[in-house]
Amino acid sequence: MTSAQQDQQWMRAALTLAARGPVADVNPRVGCVIVRDGELAGEGFHQGAGTDHAEVAALRAAGTTRGATAYVTLEPCAHTGRTGPCTEALLAAGIARVVIGATDPNPIAAGGADRLRAAGVRVDEGVLAAECTELNRTWTYAVRVGRPFVTWKLAATLDGRVAARDGSSRWITGAGARAEVHELRHRVGAIAVGTATVVADDPALTARPASGPSDRQPLRVVVGNREIDSAAKVFDDSSETLQVSSHDPSVVLTHLHERGIHHLLLEGGPTLAAAFVRADCVDEIVAYVAPVLLGAGPAVVGDLGIDTIDAASRWQLTSVSQVGDDARLTLRRKENP
Amino acid sequence: MTSAQQDQQWMRAALTLAARGPVADVNPRVGCVIVRDGELAGEGFHQGAGTDHAEVAALRAAGTTRGATAYVTLEPCAHTGRTGPCTEALLAAGIARVVIGATDPNPIAAGGADRLRAAGVRVDEGVLAAECTELNRTWTYAVRVGRPFVTWKLAATLDGRVAARDGSSRWITGAGARAEVHELRHRVGAIAVGTATVVADDPALTARPASGPSDRQPLRVVVGNREIDSAAKVFDDSSETLQVSSHDPSVVLTHLHERGIHHLLLEGGPTLAAAFVRADCVDEIVAYVAPVLLGAGPAVVGDLGIDTIDAASRWQLTSVSQVGDDARLTLRRKENP
Repeated sequence: MTSAQQDQQWMRAALTLAARGPVADVNPRVGCVIVRDGELAGEGFHQGAGTDHAEVAALRAAGTTRGATAYVTLEPCAHTGRTGPCTEALLAAGIARVVIGATDPNPIAAGGADRLRAAGVRVDEGVLAAECTELNRTWTYAVRVGRPFVTWKLAATLDGRVAARDGSSRWITGAGARAEVHELRHRVGAIAVGTATVVADDPALTARPASGPSDRQPLRVVVGNREIDSAAKVFDDSSETLQVSSHDPSVVLTHLHERGIHHLLLEGGPTLAAAFVRADCVDEIVAYVAPVLLGAGPAVVGDLGIDTIDAASRWQLTSVSQVGDDARLTLRRKENP
Repeated sequence: MTSAQQDQQWMRAALTLAARGPVADVNPRVGCVIVRDGELAGEGFHQGAGTDHAEVAALRAAGTTRGATAYVTLEPCAHTGRTGPCTEALLAAGIARVVIGATDPNPIAAGGADRLRAAGVRVDEGVLAAECTELNRTWTYAVRVGRPFVTWKLAATLDGRVAARDGSSRWITGAGARAEVHELRHRVGAIAVGTATVVADDPALTARPASGPSDRQPLRVVVGNREIDSAAKVFDDSSETLQVSSHDPSVVLTHLHERGIHHLLLEGGPTLAAAFVRADCVDEIVAYVAPVLLGAGPAVVGDLGIDTIDAASRWQLTSVSQVGDDARLTLRRKENP
């Protein structure tokens, strides 16, 4: 095995560790393995906000670390957050070489590689970089762009309706699709709907994953000026709720960014969805299409100001599959529009 | 190998032969193998209207056939069409045993198994019956039910539009989906659109498969009373065209049944599609869903008279896949509505 292959093998071990971390919205998932004389000496991963960073956990597990190599899926941080900077921990442990997967996109925390090099540590970057970045796709995006990554989840009939003519909509999609949505809610930092949806459907907007009660709930965001009855489920005590009295998506996203939200799940009706699409604030669409026809009723998205086919809003289809009785289509922003 | 397994093995060989036959609308695809002393003696398949039936082709290829077994994917016909009845050919050849896959659903041609038994031949039915029936799915349906099997093909945006607000629709789906539609047209007996589609789009409605010019074209059917300009492409000489001056789907289907059409591809606009859905005359939906949003424009299907979600038209999703840039969903009539 070449040394490049060996590096990849250890980085893959670190990636596997990282994936064991909680898929929460607050922090990235990070894994670290310490290798001494070609043998695994210690391993660690980040278990959530306020706990040890992966590097610190791995160093502790390793015991003797002088002259060893550390493989980290994400560039070690050089700033002090709720925990001390990892660069200093690595230096104090006498690590001779650090191999990095993804570069830290955070302008505040970045600079770890430079700091290590300046202190005489050999640093190699970019090993399995794509996979290490994909692991924290939405977090990376939010940190880099300065606003949450936005996933618009929709559930519609094959003819694009979200309700029948009389407004009834329970249920368009089946149990399989609805269960997946709870897993999705469980992974995001916030869920947004418009006031119209709150009034019409009185949704709880909580994550109820099949694995059992969730230990954390996404922030619930209600967009719009309309006053909501305080007895609405969205104001129960199962999670925090934020009402944003503006229909401007960039105002909503700025609020959420300031609160440290990296991934927003847009679950609103046609009006809110249209506002986000028009403002180019949707990064991904997860569409559940039911094998159902209605022939009438509200469409999945409101007016987009599009008059002709050449002006259509075009996306890239990245995956298609059957979920229970329904189809799931995942669309991402077009790389080269 | 048990004798049941041997029967299946020979029937599978006959199925493979049958599948080499042309996927035309007129005749079913049939394969036949003649087995003597456990060895393959001859094989044949139906190559299209006016040519030898599979049994006759296989008998001719076999030479000596006295005491042999014939494996046929479809019950041998007992009537004289453009060719003589196959039962008599099998009897004249001295075949001792006939193994049948699918039963002939045709009330005129059926009775072959009984005729053979009455003449002292051992007949075993139902070997790989499901696969043998599936091979001629639409033909079997049409013969059994007494009207063409109807596939509604639609191409729409994710929000269920078939054109933009100004009526423009070229193109919603990509080249991959459009190429598949030509393969589909190549396999059906007729294609139907409404007069509105002819006026708006002036389609040629011909099959232009990637494999090159087709040697047969489906019948073109224009539904509606509106007069069509004789210069319309649908009246060019590339294929026959039938105008049916009725919007009643059962009238259209009766006309087509009388002309020996077994499979109709419905490619019309929202009004024609709605008429067929309301009349419960759609057996299958092949939906190309483009990763495109329009937010306005005509919906894929017109009013279905559905007011509430409990009355929704529900289908069974049988397959989902990516075709080029688009998704293809196939829906069939629900078995247990």
